Amino acid sequence: MQEEECVNGDAAGLDALLADLAKVSNSRERASKLFQWLISPIPAKSFFKETWEKKPILVQRKNPDYYKGLFSCAEFDRILRQEDVQYGVNLDVTSYTNGTRETHNPPGRALPYTVWDFYESGCSLRMLNPQAFSSTVWNVLSILQEQFGSMAGANIYLTPPGTQGFAPHYDDIEAFVVQLEGKKHWRVYNPRTEDEILPVLSSQSPGSCRVSDATALCLFSSPANFDQAEIGKPILEVVLEAGDLLYFPRGFIHQGDCLPDTHSLHITISAQQKNSWGDLLQKMVPAALEIAMEEDVEFRQGLPLDYLTYMGVQNSDKDDPRRTKFFSQIENLMKKLINYAPVDAAVDQKARDFLHDCLPPLLTPEELASSVRGAPARWERGQVMDVGAQITTQTRVRLLRAGCARLCSDGEAVHLYYTTDNSRVYHKEELKSFEIKAENTDAIEFLIHSYPKFVTVGSFPCDSADDRITLAELLFERGIIHTAEPL
Amino acid sequence: MQEEECVNGDAAGLDALLADLAKVSNSRERASKLFQWLISPIPAKSFFKETWEKKPILVQRKNPDYYKGLFSCAEFDRILRQEDVQYGVNLDVTSYTNGTRETHNPPGRALPYTVWDFYESGCSLRMLNPQAFSSTVWNVLSILQEQFGSMAGANIYLTPPGTQGFAPHYDDIEAFVVQLEGKKHWRVYNPRTEDEILPVLSSQSPGSCRVSDATALCLFSSPANFDQAEIGKPILEVVLEAGDLLYFPRGFIHQGDCLPDTHSLHITISAQQKNSWGDLLQKMVPAALEIAMEEDVEFRQGLPLDYLTYMGVQNSDKDDPRRTKFFSQIENLMKKLINYAPVDAAVDQKARDFLHDCLPPLLTPEELASSVRGAPARWERGQVMDVGAQITTQTRVRLLRAGCARLCSDGEAVHLYYTTDNSRVYHKEELKSFEIKAENTDAIEFLIHSYPKFVTVGSFPCDSADDRITLAELLFERGIIHTAEPL
Amino acid sequence: MQEEECVNGDAAGLDALLADLAKVSNSRERASKLFQWLISPIPAKSFFKETWEKKPILVQRKNPDYYKGLFSCAEFDRILRQEDVQYGVNLDVTSYTNGTRETHNPPGRALPYTVWDFYESGCSLRMLNPQAFSSTVWNVLSILQEQFGSMAGANIYLTPPGTQGFAPHYDDIEAFVVQLEGKKHWRVYNPRTEDEILPVLSSQSPGSCRVSDATALCLFSSPANFDQAEIGKPILEVVLEAGDLLYFPRGFIHQGDCLPDTHSLHITISAQQKNSWGDLLQKMVPAALEIAMEEDVEFRQGLPLDYLTYMGVQNSDKDDPRRTKFFSQIENLMKKLINYAPVDAAVDQKARDFLHDCLPPLLTPEELASSVRGAPARWERGQVMDVGAQITTQTRVRLLRAGCARLCSDGEAVHLYYTTDNSRVYHKEELKSFEIKAENTDAIEFLIHSYPKFVTVGSFPCDSADDRITLAELLFERGIIHTAEPL
Amino acid sequence: MQEEECVNGDAAGLDALLADLAKVSNSRERASKLFQWLISPIPAKSFFKETWEKKPILVQRKNPDYYKGLFSCAEFDRILRQEDVQYGVNLDVTSYTNGTRETHNPPGRALPYTVWDFYESGCSLRMLNPQAFSSTVWNVLSILQEQFGSMAGANIYLTPPGTQGFAPHYDDIEAFVVQLEGKKHWRVYNPRTEDEILPVLSSQSPGSCRVSDATALCLFSSPANFDQAEIGKPILEVVLEAGDLLYFPRGFIHQGDCLPDTHSLHITISAQQKNSWGDLLQKMVPAALEIAMEEDVEFRQGLPLDYLTYMGVQNSDKDDPRRTKFFSQIENLMKKLINYAPVDAAVDQKARDFLHDCLPPLLTPEELASSVRGAPARWERGQVMDVGAQITTQTRVRLLRAGCARLCSDGEAVHLYYTTDNSRVYHKEELKSFEIKAENTDAIEFLIHSYPKFVTVGSFPCDSADDRITLAELLFERGIIHTAEPL
Repeated sequence: MQEEECVNGDAAGLDALLADLAKVSNSRERASKLFQWLISPIPAKSFFKETWEKKPILVQRKNPDYYKGLFSCAEFDRILRQEDVQYGVNLDVTSYTNGTRETHNPPGRALPYTVWDFYESGCSLRMLNPQAFSSTVWNVLSILQEQFGSMAGANIYLTPPGTQGFAPHYDDIEAFVVQLEGKKHWRVYNPRTEDEILPVLSSQSPGSCRVSDATALCLFSSPANFDQAEIGKPILEVVLEAGDLLYFPRGFIHQGDCLPDTHSLHITISAQQKNSWGDLLQKMVPAALEIAMEEDVEFRQGLPLDYLTYMGVQNSDKDDPRRTKFFSQIENLMKKLINYAPVDAAVDQKARDFLHDCLPPLLTPEELASSVRGAPARWERGQVMDVGAQITTQTRVRLLRAGCARLCSDGEAVHLYYTTDNSRVYHKEELKSFEIKAENTDAIEFLIHSYPKFVTVGSFPCDSADDRITLAELLFERGIIHTAEPL
Repeated sequence: MQEEECVNGDAAGLDALLADLAKVSNSRERASKLFQWLISPIPAKSFFKETWEKKPILVQRKNPDYYKGLFSCAEFDRILRQEDVQYGVNLDVTSYTNGTRETHNPPGRALPYTVWDFYESGCSLRMLNPQAFSSTVWNVLSILQEQFGSMAGANIYLTPPGTQGFAPHYDDIEAFVVQLEGKKHWRVYNPRTEDEILPVLSSQSPGSCRVSDATALCLFSSPANFDQAEIGKPILEVVLEAGDLLYFPRGFIHQGDCLPDTHSLHITISAQQKNSWGDLLQKMVPAALEIAMEEDVEFRQGLPLDYLTYMGVQNSDKDDPRRTKFFSQIENLMKKLINYAPVDAAVDQKARDFLHDCLPPLLTPEELASSVRGAPARWERGQVMDVGAQITTQTRVRLLRAGCARLCSDGEAVHLYYTTDNSRVYHKEELKSFEIKAENTDAIEFLIHSYPKFVTVGSFPCDSADDRITLAELLFERGIIHTAEPL
Repeated sequence: MQEEECVNGDAAGLDALLADLAKVSNSRERASKLFQWLISPIPAKSFFKETWEKKPILVQRKNPDYYKGLFSCAEFDRILRQEDVQYGVNLDVTSYTNGTRETHNPPGRALPYTVWDFYESGCSLRMLNPQAFSSTVWNVLSILQEQFGSMAGANIYLTPPGTQGFAPHYDDIEAFVVQLEGKKHWRVYNPRTEDEILPVLSSQSPGSCRVSDATALCLFSSPANFDQAEIGKPILEVVLEAGDLLYFPRGFIHQGDCLPDTHSLHITISAQQKNSWGDLLQKMVPAALEIAMEEDVEFRQGLPLDYLTYMGVQNSDKDDPRRTKFFSQIENLMKKLINYAPVDAAVDQKARDFLHDCLPPLLTPEELASSVRGAPARWERGQVMDVGAQITTQTRVRLLRAGCARLCSDGEAVHLYYTTDNSRVYHKEELKSFEIKAENTDAIEFLIHSYPKFVTVGSFPCDSADDRITLAELLFERGIIHTAEPL
Repeated sequence: MQEEECVNGDAAGLDALLADLAKVSNSRERASKLFQWLISPIPAKSFFKETWEKKPILVQRKNPDYYKGLFSCAEFDRILRQEDVQYGVNLDVTSYTNGTRETHNPPGRALPYTVWDFYESGCSLRMLNPQAFSSTVWNVLSILQEQFGSMAGANIYLTPPGTQGFAPHYDDIEAFVVQLEGKKHWRVYNPRTEDEILPVLSSQSPGSCRVSDATALCLFSSPANFDQAEIGKPILEVVLEAGDLLYFPRGFIHQGDCLPDTHSLHITISAQQKNSWGDLLQKMVPAALEIAMEEDVEFRQGLPLDYLTYMGVQNSDKDDPRRTKFFSQIENLMKKLINYAPVDAAVDQKARDFLHDCLPPLLTPEELASSVRGAPARWERGQVMDVGAQITTQTRVRLLRAGCARLCSDGEAVHLYYTTDNSRVYHKEELKSFEIKAENTDAIEFLIHSYPKFVTVGSFPCDSADDRITLAELLFERGIIHTAEPL
């Protein structure tokens, strides 16, 4: 595969790769290359065809430096020292000993003095949102989210030698376990039943953490425990070493423990949480029914006067021809319901959720120089300099990233939703948007569909040159577009 | 029609009819006879086939006493004098003059002193829940609700000579306008558009009153006003006289005004509010989807990685084969969804709503004597008498009314819901229910399906005689069953 | 005492007394006479001087008919039969056996069938708001509240022979135990400590019921239990017989049990709940401080920069002259605070609470005939009659009751608060009031201070005859005033 | 004054001063020296005696570098570039032109591109919590708060030449206006009335911003506008130049505008918000009354039965001896109330509020090295190093700052409240505390009162050596104490 070679040709690790990727003009292509690097040498195409959501896969590389630069224990230590890491919010201290899973979080800030003490006494450490503390993790995830089309999350796990931090469990996300340092002994098990294939929720999720705005950081954690006896024999057992990758779909039970002689540091990258066809239908079906009731009188007709006398659970054993007729009418209406399904509008609802989940882009130096964040306006020597750099009709612009903005309609008004003011902390900011007037929707669509090409502001399909520039300035100020050349 | 004749044979008016009906053993039959009386001489069967939800119909009887006893201005006066009628809650004072509709409610209790003063100055009076104040209205509606299978409501309208109280509008209920005293000039108009046939909401309902627990009494009132110019020509114009009936389906615009020389008193009886196939589907479809997601992995599979790039409103004009495939999968899933539709469970949800809406039964003297409310236990001459009247296995019992209790399952437990402790005031009481243990569900079903026959407690399909008696006592204490003979 | 004799001269019991009292023009005098009857032959004056809030007192009359007509077991039975009495809301079923106090309330309506069954099995019955069901109790309490100047409440207790329904406890109200039927053996104990003299809350009140709008009916019930060992020897032990009275102040522990051979029915009438000087100060003191801060700069001056270094609990043992100075300044400010105390405004806050607690007046036939509720406007023979009975400047009016309305200022506006639209159910209605314009406050004060004299509407100190009549009509419509002669 | 000379001897500006102050062992002394530098050459003692809360004062230094290093336009620019400054939250864009005050905040992040554009078009910029962005401002305020004994706040104002950003107004804080760059023309006016001397709220505060947890950053801003005509003649008019200081108490109206030829940058440091005797009394008086009601039966005695007939606003003109007696009893109780005033407990409530308001300390390198944040535990070369540095009974410790922790009792339990985990963002963190067991309170008091002396852990008045070390470890882990030598 030409592409991968190109990407992996440089042996200098992730930093060099990211520098190379910064030169890839199209962010979707960039995402695809980074993902290929992640699972190399498995070709992405065959991965998505044969493995994704289907079965675990293992890549053993005998190259401890393959993922170098992504994260390290040194970085872990730096973060504890320099950032405001809070126990229970950003960091969990856990143990799994003699079949018992415990959490040991004290209140307050997690400082090296106490964290490393827990570690020395055999506790595992889980950092819940490394993307908020590590720019590299942020960068990698913000690129991968364009590949996944759903939120790319991550947790970091550091486990002392000879211990296990978590009980066997399954998650509700596709998991890429990337071994960063040391080694870990993994066992993966098949879903126990049909119902646990690609499950909606983690194992025993009532006791587990669900994603909510309130407890946002615990993305795929704390599923409740299986006993060793309930899970059968592993279908895969391996000692993962630095540079290795283990992927398994949601629903596959797994557990990992450290060998007596070495610690383990890995990052688990996640995708596809609450991103199924059913999740889309949950947004679409009630809307479809509302539309059907507005447009089709058959949905508005009254129920039979006597339906309560032969329908309902207490009548479910009755052999009554009216029941057959009733079921038949339900089936008739359900079939008609398809005709009213607002598929694109429902997709936009999912899209808005995704845009809210997205990490903001980490700008390359070139992107910075050509966007509002790097604009030259500044205070210098007692006065303001280079203010009001002019966007003109000659200025060439494009979206900052392929997926950083999206035009959605709620039926009444059209809004542009965008990710560039999102926070690195999950849902810390509201989803950002502003209304697009009818006369500007064509210009926005033009911009979106032109990507990755730059287009001149003058080419916007607006009513006047003033409108073109006003719109461009607005998009520029919100960080949604950047210019071909620094202003 | 034999039946109607039987019912209508007696010319002595509603009281005599109700006394006769009290002897009809099966409450459903009773309901059917009372409804037949309401619309006589139109046969109920043809009414429901040709008229109901389809078109207005008029019955002119030249018999001012036909509905006598249902309600009267004298009763209106008595209620104001004796009951706690509150302006805005139980009574509205309105006017429609020169195209302007106004409400004139002062705060506080509506006493004859102020109410009749409003009337004298040309205002219309609308009593919102006459069933709470008039036993006859309560009785009639509580019987009719078994015919309708949906809440039977009522408003009373008293209009001074030469005035109009309401602007042209349409409602969201099937309306039976029963002229009680005086005369009223009515005009009825076709729905203006297809969308307004059998509408979900009253005309301009955002400004109008919707049924909610909070404002519960305003059941089908205050729809916003049409100008005379918007509504075209009437399809029916008539002067309704005492004893006449006018029926029109929801969506038909209507207005009524008094002739210069006489007042008008009418009651509007309503049915079919929020009782359409679509209302049932609103309960069923989300549940169907939940079940489908649990049982069918195809609903749990992830969306295509790139679906956001070709789906959604901003891509809706794209001619992309992936769109076709996406739509096709949606259609496939929607079709499969039918298989997971929990029709009976959804009907039970509707049934529970209806049971909560139901008026409690007004007991006949015989029912009273044979049920808990008339049990002979009492304080007499310094001591308790006739306490603990024994239900034995010989005792013959049945439901108090065909529809007064219903067995529903919420998936986990089975509950018996019942209407006998409901209030005459809409939703003043919570919906009443209690859990039925698994070993008693057969006995409850047996009871329900045995109606109108009495069965001995000993014949209950329970495990032991004690269980039979305990169950019977519980049902008796809640007023759900009565005995063939007074205890 | 002339008065009492006059009142008690007629042996025909309470009904006759109430009929006599109806002729007493001044409602305060009426209240005083009724209270005198309650405690007769103790003179009210000496009672309030020597006994009230000080010690128990016993009146044994050897006249079982003395309180006849107030309440009876027959009335209890009638109420269960005819009114909507709900377990837990209006009726408690209790027992105290072998030192254990239990409540046995089932859900739902309390019907004779179940209530008398509980009674027969040895349970006590407590009816929580008999004034809502018994017109006589309502009448008596509504009169007594004018004597007490605080809410007059009542509970009814019916106890089977040989049983006890409640554990020893003390209440937070002045209690008048009126024996109605049968006998009860009572023991009363001194408050155990100084702190329990005239206590703010019932014994162990966290577990007990406090008056709140939500649970309003449980007025002085459910105080937690003392063991027999904790309460010492009774200071009073007696068998109360029908016609006897036992009074004890809040804080006195008490328990009552039935002799083996006879049941007991008594009513406890209560007063003085949350009506202490301290309760008034709680309303006054924060307001005083707010005023002081507005008017006196010394209250606005900053605290010493270093006060946290020598004040506070951690410094409380320090012997520092700055502490002395600090205390001295606090004392200085507290003394000045008295000057800003808005005593009358705080009394008005208490008054408003009382007006909200008040029972509405039960009208005598004469009051009815001369007030809005008895106004002759009516529907008769197809038309409205006697509507718009005119109030003229000649009409003589007065307040319906001495305390039925009160003028209060909240600093900005003046409102008239009134009790005539209150409910017999505690706080079921909001406190009623309306704003009085500045030009009408003199007229309102004139009316209030003229009571019990009737005054002509023409004598109101208003600006014009129209204003006088408009004001009188408003007061008449709200039931606040009645006329000397029926309109 | 020896001290000041010492502090001001070094001409190298604020950085050098802060470095010197880091060597001052006692944080209170440090605070006092820094405050002296702020107002130099006015002696602090005479300032607090003659000026503080009394009148404005001006210090003109002819030394533009005096405050150098505190803040600058370059720092402003850096913050916009590097920090997440949000319009409306951290930065306001304002103008005051032709008597009209406007705010121009767009939504979203404040970037140089837009901020400097506003500035160029004549808008003023107010940064609302510079302490969150500038370490120097944080350091200075965190030191000064120990001098003030109340929250030290700050806003930054940058005004373009020839403009004015705010209308005349007064604030509710003591204001130290420190001119940093350029010049500003100031006019200060006397409070207009007695009531506006040391006011509780800013001018027209309903329209203005009040401190609340929600809008926390706007500490003394947005008071409403006076017209020039309402404020009379200034008592002080001056052109403030870099290095100058202007102080004025709360209530003094002020306005500042830029000369045509130069911009102005100043910081306003604030103190004494809601820190008056009255604020303390608001916490103390309700508690005093509660205690009085518990301990003194006179507060629990019932109000006179008839008090509502002669007290209250409607009776306030009455000449009734009972009124005199009533007032007299109120006065009596108010006087007694003083005896129950829980002064120290109320001070502790104020103290807790202050501890919550406090900025966390900015640690000197020495403090860092000897406290938990600088503890040597770390990840190094594949393993944890220097973990578990032992605190022994020999270890010498003290509080990190004089006021960083405080022992308060809520009557039931004793808690230690502390500032060391506070956030630089106002109230972003909850107030931190933990319970101190009874056996450890002496040790905590010993520690607090020993400051600034170091004491050995072995000298703690605890029951055992283990207890001493456990307590010391806990305090060390929370950052409340540091050691004499790095562990």
